[in-house]
Amino acid sequence: MKKQAIGFIDSGVGGLTVVKEAMRQLPNESIYYVGDTARCPYGPRPEEQVRQFTWEMTHFLLNKDIKMLVIACNTATAVALEDLKKKLAIPIIGVILPGSRAAIKATKNNRIGIIGTEGTVNSDKYKKMIQSKDLLTSVNSLACPKFVPLVESNEYRSSIAKKIVAETLKPIKNKKIDTLILGCTHYPLLSSIIQNVMGDSVTLIDSGAETISEVSTILDYFNLAELSENKEVSERKFFTTGSTHMFNDIASQWLGDEALDIEHIKLGTEKI
Amino acid sequence: MKKQAIGFIDSGVGGLTVVKEAMRQLPNESIYYVGDTARCPYGPRPEEQVRQFTWEMTHFLLNKDIKMLVIACNTATAVALEDLKKKLAIPIIGVILPGSRAAIKATKNNRIGIIGTEGTVNSDKYKKMIQSKDLLTSVNSLACPKFVPLVESNEYRSSIAKKIVAETLKPIKNKKIDTLILGCTHYPLLSSIIQNVMGDSVTLIDSGAETISEVSTILDYFNLAELSENKEVSERKFFTTGSTHMFNDIASQWLGDEALDIEHIKLGTEKI
Repeated sequence: MKKQAIGFIDSGVGGLTVVKEAMRQLPNESIYYVGDTARCPYGPRPEEQVRQFTWEMTHFLLNKDIKMLVIACNTATAVALEDLKKKLAIPIIGVILPGSRAAIKATKNNRIGIIGTEGTVNSDKYKKMIQSKDLLTSVNSLACPKFVPLVESNEYRSSIAKKIVAETLKPIKNKKIDTLILGCTHYPLLSSIIQNVMGDSVTLIDSGAETISEVSTILDYFNLAELSENKEVSERKFFTTGSTHMFNDIASQWLGDEALDIEHIKLGTEKI
Repeated sequence: MKKQAIGFIDSGVGGLTVVKEAMRQLPNESIYYVGDTARCPYGPRPEEQVRQFTWEMTHFLLNKDIKMLVIACNTATAVALEDLKKKLAIPIIGVILPGSRAAIKATKNNRIGIIGTEGTVNSDKYKKMIQSKDLLTSVNSLACPKFVPLVESNEYRSSIAKKIVAETLKPIKNKKIDTLILGCTHYPLLSSIIQNVMGDSVTLIDSGAETISEVSTILDYFNLAELSENKEVSERKFFTTGSTHMFNDIASQWLGDEALDIEHIKLGTEKI
């Protein structure tokens, strides 16, 4: 029987860090990914617009009969998850709760830091989530608006990247945090630079890896997981609203696969 | 409003390693724990008996209006989880899937080891779970029947314990595993000795800590989590079929709390 895919949506290529973990931890699953590269970044956009764009990607994937949706974008999770949860009949997961949970699990001194886009940081969702679970944990947030463009322009290993990361993180370095949530799915591509700046004593939380554990939990809970017995091939399809060439450059390198199935699509016609 | 508790059941004190993580990661939750110390260990018992005992503990907690049940015992999870899932209207979670998932996430060389009771190892549940998710991962299991009595008798830090652990683990030491699942909730009390014997290159998976992440996921998914806004005190109640004195010795030390609310109970009258 043909496998129903898990759908992933993101403002661009950042969600590929989540997909990479899905391919590793859940090799039996089919994956459809939509990256709205043409309209990236989402971080500085008004909430209403992010909600509309998120709905357009979701609608596109629902038409492809996905069995579950992962909002692999912190900005979109912050503004659209609750609304989508009410609208969809399939399970839906964002990246903020898994990241918050993993940070609570990891911290020893109850001081957690969060870096993300302006949209994510202004929404204050991480802080609210963490403190709704543990009031005694302190939370420091920092918006890093320059990080996403670095990744999307494939500059994330350059010396410019090192300089920008070091300068941007200064305000959070003296907060005595022992755990830092990479609150944007683009940031794991910068993780070795971020680790270097923050020092080895700070645990970085990759919300992508954590989110996939939760995807697996929910799939099992609802008996939706693909088992090894199903010999049907696991499909991986990537859809981008931007240049397939640019998308392929980053995706093939990040996922370690030269022959990705990437298709250009247009969004923007579906009303919320 | 009074908080509905999460119920935890175990053959004895082993499940307290799961409760400790629950108290740390989910401080807002009320917890009821049943340890069937009088009939511990479950490992060598016939499946039918373990299923019956598990049902008796579950029935006891259902009468106390729990909102979720955690089978904090690998042996009981292996034989009773599927059956209980069909019978109960509340969410129920075992420790085998969370441990399997965490091991798949952690392994780099796709070679996972599992130690557990005879019951758990003979059921082959871990191997089946892991390979149903990733056929290419090799799995080596080893029964360690002497470990639970060491913990239940409060001998888990003695030189005898060191000797027994070193001898027992010999057969799994040369399997080139990089990840070892502590497939019994008693074993985290022996974890520093086990880590010492296995060496630093082997990642130990504490199914308890992993299970609590999944409990948190499911609570959030079904909007059952207690939030910090609810100022009602989180209750912690412990019920044991054995000696409250012996239970208190281990529990107060392990949970770092001198004033535990422990009550002796009798089980064995409820039919499955």
